[in-house]
Amino acid sequence: MAAKTVKTLLGNAGVLVNGPNPWDIQVHDERWYKRVYNQRNLGLGKSYMDGWWDCKRLDVMFFKLLQAGLHHNTPKRLRYLLKLLPGMLFNLQTIMRSRIIAEKHYDLGNDLFFSFLDPYLQYSCAFFQDTQDLNEAQHNKLQLISSKLNLQQKDHLLDIGCGWGGLLKHITERHACQGTGVNISSRQLNHARKFCKELPVKFKDQDYRFITGQYEKIVSVGMFEHVGHKNYRTFMKVVHDCLKKEGIFLLHTIGANRSKRSCDPWITKYIFPNGMLPSIMQISKSIEGLFIIEDVHNLGPNYDKTLMAWNNNFQQTWPDLSKNNPKYDKRFKRMWEYYLLSCAGAFRARDIQVWQLVMTHDHPGRKQPECRF
Amino acid sequence: MAAKTVKTLLGNAGVLVNGPNPWDIQVHDERWYKRVYNQRNLGLGKSYMDGWWDCKRLDVMFFKLLQAGLHHNTPKRLRYLLKLLPGMLFNLQTIMRSRIIAEKHYDLGNDLFFSFLDPYLQYSCAFFQDTQDLNEAQHNKLQLISSKLNLQQKDHLLDIGCGWGGLLKHITERHACQGTGVNISSRQLNHARKFCKELPVKFKDQDYRFITGQYEKIVSVGMFEHVGHKNYRTFMKVVHDCLKKEGIFLLHTIGANRSKRSCDPWITKYIFPNGMLPSIMQISKSIEGLFIIEDVHNLGPNYDKTLMAWNNNFQQTWPDLSKNNPKYDKRFKRMWEYYLLSCAGAFRARDIQVWQLVMTHDHPGRKQPECRF
Repeated sequence: MAAKTVKTLLGNAGVLVNGPNPWDIQVHDERWYKRVYNQRNLGLGKSYMDGWWDCKRLDVMFFKLLQAGLHHNTPKRLRYLLKLLPGMLFNLQTIMRSRIIAEKHYDLGNDLFFSFLDPYLQYSCAFFQDTQDLNEAQHNKLQLISSKLNLQQKDHLLDIGCGWGGLLKHITERHACQGTGVNISSRQLNHARKFCKELPVKFKDQDYRFITGQYEKIVSVGMFEHVGHKNYRTFMKVVHDCLKKEGIFLLHTIGANRSKRSCDPWITKYIFPNGMLPSIMQISKSIEGLFIIEDVHNLGPNYDKTLMAWNNNFQQTWPDLSKNNPKYDKRFKRMWEYYLLSCAGAFRARDIQVWQLVMTHDHPGRKQPECRF
Repeated sequence: MAAKTVKTLLGNAGVLVNGPNPWDIQVHDERWYKRVYNQRNLGLGKSYMDGWWDCKRLDVMFFKLLQAGLHHNTPKRLRYLLKLLPGMLFNLQTIMRSRIIAEKHYDLGNDLFFSFLDPYLQYSCAFFQDTQDLNEAQHNKLQLISSKLNLQQKDHLLDIGCGWGGLLKHITERHACQGTGVNISSRQLNHARKFCKELPVKFKDQDYRFITGQYEKIVSVGMFEHVGHKNYRTFMKVVHDCLKKEGIFLLHTIGANRSKRSCDPWITKYIFPNGMLPSIMQISKSIEGLFIIEDVHNLGPNYDKTLMAWNNNFQQTWPDLSKNNPKYDKRFKRMWEYYLLSCAGAFRARDIQVWQLVMTHDHPGRKQPECRF
């Protein structure tokens, strides 16, 4: 029965089992049907890592599954038990637990990330305006953020979740302003300090909840996804308290079309523990009385291109990366490409978005900055 | 005591009673203090209509009062009784009650509105890009909407709350598409039919809740403010059901920084009965599962300029308008200028916003349209 149901569900989405199309699934192990039937997304991902099946165009396959609305057909009871409950009951992103994502993902190894990222080490959505090249598109994204922040020489820019320091490097090189980066991944911080050695930038190993100080501009790119809905308001209050009255705050985050309290179970287990994608409603609720929303720019389709470019780079550099490094085995490679390509498909299907929100203090009389770039 | 309190509150905001500045208040009747003390905003507006006080720059006065946060100091009990209760308990914008705003405001008299509006009769925020001229700015706004809707010759555009038909006239003149306008103000509809006589545009005297049909593009400009929070979801469901799968919906609305269920009591009583300004949170809540938010453009500061231009036009044409028309007496003139200038001050103080939201169907695979204009 499992085989028939799985085949029918996939078939409805235009994906054939052992079919001739590049997006079709080639099954190597007959136990696959039962595993996917019982564990859905989680089983699909795990069995890919185990080499039970293959697919030449994983990204297209995911696009087709999502386009057909397959992810909305998961039985409610299962979803509830598997996904929603922990996030509803517990704060999965407490100060202690926040270290999990830093250690499990961002500390995986700089060599891994550097094998597929651009020279500014931007591990977030690029902006493919007038280009198809990843490096140019990441430069565009950083220029876009600089423009929206209206950076001036006198400004001190706070970057919450600063990654390897690439944003602060790019911006302080060009705008002669000061920067402070905050992060909880020690491997990222070590590199960031070297990366920005000659520049007026400081880095702090600090949970966002402990940030103090006063900044003209605040930016957070690709970090809000780790904050968790129980902490959105806390996050926004910290930003509010650290942003000068005439300041600008730019939030760049992946987002969900509907308010949820959980993420895909496979992604949660293998890639981003405790990740959670906010909706515009959840974001706008968390800023009431603190900020005015000046602009919302949906960059979603650019993440499809970004992820495809990352996967291309990853595939090309994999032989070098994995040589003499047992950590990077075949199972790891399959996990990583599954992650990159399933996300590319999700952005292509418009199942998830990327938003840049520009905000200013909700205090009377603060003039509107230019935001339409 | 009333006089002292009122003077202190105003003084804290930099507004003097009988002071020398153009934004100071010149009191002509000593009963004024008590009336303002007891009735706050409502008393301030009513006593202006009665000629108990004057102010050369009402707009600056309101800007200063709002900038000082005076409106947040109203005692809670009073706010509750005066404003919140009706909107919390009752649906103030039922199908029957919706006629109130049509009859009380939009049917006031076309001559009044035409005395201060631009040639396309745009009774909503203009877009002052590269111009300080109202007529050009309204043309810009209509061009901006056309661009965001990506209008094609084959398109049928639905305009919910179409006013005097100016948007449909402007757009069908330029894009050779079809239009349908829906409205419940009979005076507006009568004019709209004449205004678009030679064009492929139909008008319907219809509550939005009864709209049917299928449209490539849907627009609603300055009408959502009358829908009421109890009906936001109903409104969005109607738009969702009438928008073709690949369609685009543009919502242009005044909005509040914080979620509320009421409007200023003077505005409610004299200008817009049952008006209610939505927050981004309320809007985004009402569209979950129906639409993806592609773009949010905050035009707020443009409404300050629009209202100032309207007041200039209104003051200039007033002698002609009021001649031999007892309806337009001195009290009416004071009411109208108080309305225009207090709103200008509110937009200048960033107390309220204007948002253009571009939305597409939340159905997987719908491509993103170009929205950054």
